[in-house]
Amino acid sequence: MASATISKTIYLGPFVHSFSLTNLEICGKGVIGVDEKGVIRFVERDSSLEDVHSKHDEWKEAEIVKTQDNGFFFPGFIDTHTHASQHPNTGIFGKTTLLSWLETYTFPLESSLSSLSKAQTVYSNFVSRTLSHGTTTCAYYATTHVPTTNLLADICLKRGQRALIGRVCMNTMSPEYYRDQSVEDAVRDSKASIDYIRSIDPDGSIVQPIITPRFAPSCTATCLSALGALHKETNAHIQTHISENKPEIQLVQSLFPTSKSYADVYDTAGLLTSKTILAHAVHLTPDEISLVKSRDSKISHCPASNTALTSGCSPVRELLNAGLTVGLGTDVSGGFSPSILEECRQAIWVSRFRAMNDGDEAKLSTAEALYLATRGGAQVVGLEDKVGGFEVGKEWDAQMISLGEVKEGGEQEGKFEGPVDVFGWESWEDRVNKWVYSGDDRNTLAVWVRGRLVHTTGRYQQ
Amino acid sequence: MASATISKTIYLGPFVHSFSLTNLEICGKGVIGVDEKGVIRFVERDSSLEDVHSKHDEWKEAEIVKTQDNGFFFPGFIDTHTHASQHPNTGIFGKTTLLSWLETYTFPLESSLSSLSKAQTVYSNFVSRTLSHGTTTCAYYATTHVPTTNLLADICLKRGQRALIGRVCMNTMSPEYYRDQSVEDAVRDSKASIDYIRSIDPDGSIVQPIITPRFAPSCTATCLSALGALHKETNAHIQTHISENKPEIQLVQSLFPTSKSYADVYDTAGLLTSKTILAHAVHLTPDEISLVKSRDSKISHCPASNTALTSGCSPVRELLNAGLTVGLGTDVSGGFSPSILEECRQAIWVSRFRAMNDGDEAKLSTAEALYLATRGGAQVVGLEDKVGGFEVGKEWDAQMISLGEVKEGGEQEGKFEGPVDVFGWESWEDRVNKWVYSGDDRNTLAVWVRGRLVHTTGRYQQ
Repeated sequence: MASATISKTIYLGPFVHSFSLTNLEICGKGVIGVDEKGVIRFVERDSSLEDVHSKHDEWKEAEIVKTQDNGFFFPGFIDTHTHASQHPNTGIFGKTTLLSWLETYTFPLESSLSSLSKAQTVYSNFVSRTLSHGTTTCAYYATTHVPTTNLLADICLKRGQRALIGRVCMNTMSPEYYRDQSVEDAVRDSKASIDYIRSIDPDGSIVQPIITPRFAPSCTATCLSALGALHKETNAHIQTHISENKPEIQLVQSLFPTSKSYADVYDTAGLLTSKTILAHAVHLTPDEISLVKSRDSKISHCPASNTALTSGCSPVRELLNAGLTVGLGTDVSGGFSPSILEECRQAIWVSRFRAMNDGDEAKLSTAEALYLATRGGAQVVGLEDKVGGFEVGKEWDAQMISLGEVKEGGEQEGKFEGPVDVFGWESWEDRVNKWVYSGDDRNTLAVWVRGRLVHTTGRYQQ
Repeated sequence: MASATISKTIYLGPFVHSFSLTNLEICGKGVIGVDEKGVIRFVERDSSLEDVHSKHDEWKEAEIVKTQDNGFFFPGFIDTHTHASQHPNTGIFGKTTLLSWLETYTFPLESSLSSLSKAQTVYSNFVSRTLSHGTTTCAYYATTHVPTTNLLADICLKRGQRALIGRVCMNTMSPEYYRDQSVEDAVRDSKASIDYIRSIDPDGSIVQPIITPRFAPSCTATCLSALGALHKETNAHIQTHISENKPEIQLVQSLFPTSKSYADVYDTAGLLTSKTILAHAVHLTPDEISLVKSRDSKISHCPASNTALTSGCSPVRELLNAGLTVGLGTDVSGGFSPSILEECRQAIWVSRFRAMNDGDEAKLSTAEALYLATRGGAQVVGLEDKVGGFEVGKEWDAQMISLGEVKEGGEQEGKFEGPVDVFGWESWEDRVNKWVYSGDDRNTLAVWVRGRLVHTTGRYQQ
């Protein structure tokens, strides 16, 4: 699918995307031209197909895809942190917090994904799920197992979803039945997965490897440094967790007593780079924020997970004000949903809880949440030149949103096509808000990556 | 529909309901008999149809309804507080808080529901929505308009949804274009709506009236007392808001300077009774909690709304420990969803935020949230003898939940029937958790009130 040829296509209808953190563009009448390589060649506003045909003569034969039923085009979502391997545990966490949750639910499931057939089921299902929610790029944790990690890369490449795929490293404080037996094993297996992923997609246009120390408590200092060296050698991305909950931070202090901070543990190992994604960052100190900023490392904010596991409320406004780059992560199955749209809502709720103590400045707006879900995420995964918004030269990673419509009289006989009710008098801004606060995968009718159609629902009519 | 005759029916399959606040019964093999009046006549556990036929000879000709696809029966949800009239504004609130939100979004919409045709569309749509989410009983705010408030009652009666329906009273601090012109108007119009609703359903088996002073700031002391007297005269239920956010509480203090507290304002007016539903109760003082307890008034906890409008995190554990009766309310459109299942999640998240400051004791479990959504809600609306769980003598207000199943290999081609993924190895407790944390209206295949089928989806096969 990733390599399938496509036709020159004109996308016709309203579109919505972020100009900046606070500025969401809503264009009621758009015409966007995407070439045979999936690259956007023109973006016309307040324009018609006739205008565009007369202006761009060579596009007269192009295919045309129109929005449907109160619809609009929106950039594909970018999930900067999730665990494909934990998807079967979605919703199963009880009242545990991070460390007890890992022991009780997570390690047993992850270890079982040594099985290729089980991994095939779980990973295919999860990639289908994330695509159905409009996620066009995803930074995945797999497990310690190389064959099934590589299988996840195969699946993403086949389905055409951009992905960073990480073979998990953990050589200490992990169960005997699920850990790297040595630093050498951790490095060798990571290298094997990097090599495989680069072999199936040499220019990394769809899948890329990502070095994945689980988190500081499950890697020795030697292991972390070896992975830092592996980054230098391969220039692969890095992903890990940081400062998710307080007992975890205390644990890191006790395990790395000479380190100045949790962030310093990673920095000392050469893991704090501009290609590093740090998930959570709920309780960073001001010094750590400065250090992360100076290294240009990126933050994946995972509010659903932080709430479900009672980890805390990340001070996203502070992180943004400090100049950090922030995207959203679903963090399944600490998070309970594979949807970045749900994560937008959760980011907004968490910002409300911060606001209850810190004042209104903490609140994220709808526009800001959508920025984090697209442009912010693109920066976090290093794809800001390619995806996240609709500009000439960017690639067409997009979703067609459709909101449905309430019929006169209001009788639906209970047969709703989706969760959003548009009555007809709403402004475009209201409609976008209705989508953000009550929409779900039923509103994502079609999804494209690099111009290739990678998901449709039954309601998509083209 | 409410009066349609039904056949004696046996409901066959797993069922789940609350025994108590903390004890959720999950019966993997149930057989429940419901008679022609919609009343449960037997509940057999670990039993088969053959066992039941041999034990209950007169049920051999009964119709049979079986669960489907990893399904179970669950009691209908009870929404103890929502505004049918605000549904078109769902998701539209921006960064406002209570008082600015009322002025900006709410009053203009509510006032427009003087139109019968607009109200027909909005109310039909919303009743369809709440039914589709498994809500079998709902306490509705309408508007100040008697004809359209009565229309809402007609719609609920026709659709067969149990409802308490309130004509809103507000004679001060409300816009000129949307208020009662006098106390006499407020009482007369309330009385007119009470009389109408009692005329269409004399024994109140489906629809009942509810006296509805909007909240203390929008009613003068005289108006509140007149409505207290109307309660004495009619013995109708009462619903209002209390202690939702801090500026509102200060406003009440300034408007009622001789009152001891917000709760005391209602008590002085004769509005704090065992038939009173108090929505929100986010910031009650210990004295107010004692007063509410002594009057046996009920609490509608509306966490989605409280979070969206940054009102605060209600200390539900404290309210429960004090012996108050608590149910859940969606509070559309302060709340952003008509789903009590979503409200269960939001109640759990809010309890997590309380726990971040107050300790783990504050956390609500899945079982506790489901109790509030059913048994707790039944107590709040005074229907605890009829609905909320499955016992002999109760009426069959229920929903058929179906969770779907992941196919071997995991390929779904993006065509998901619902949001929950069951892989097959999950325990029943895990499955219930998956439903609570990732389910939605797609998982509610059918809904019954008093044994009458009031909603189905296309997937329901009987």
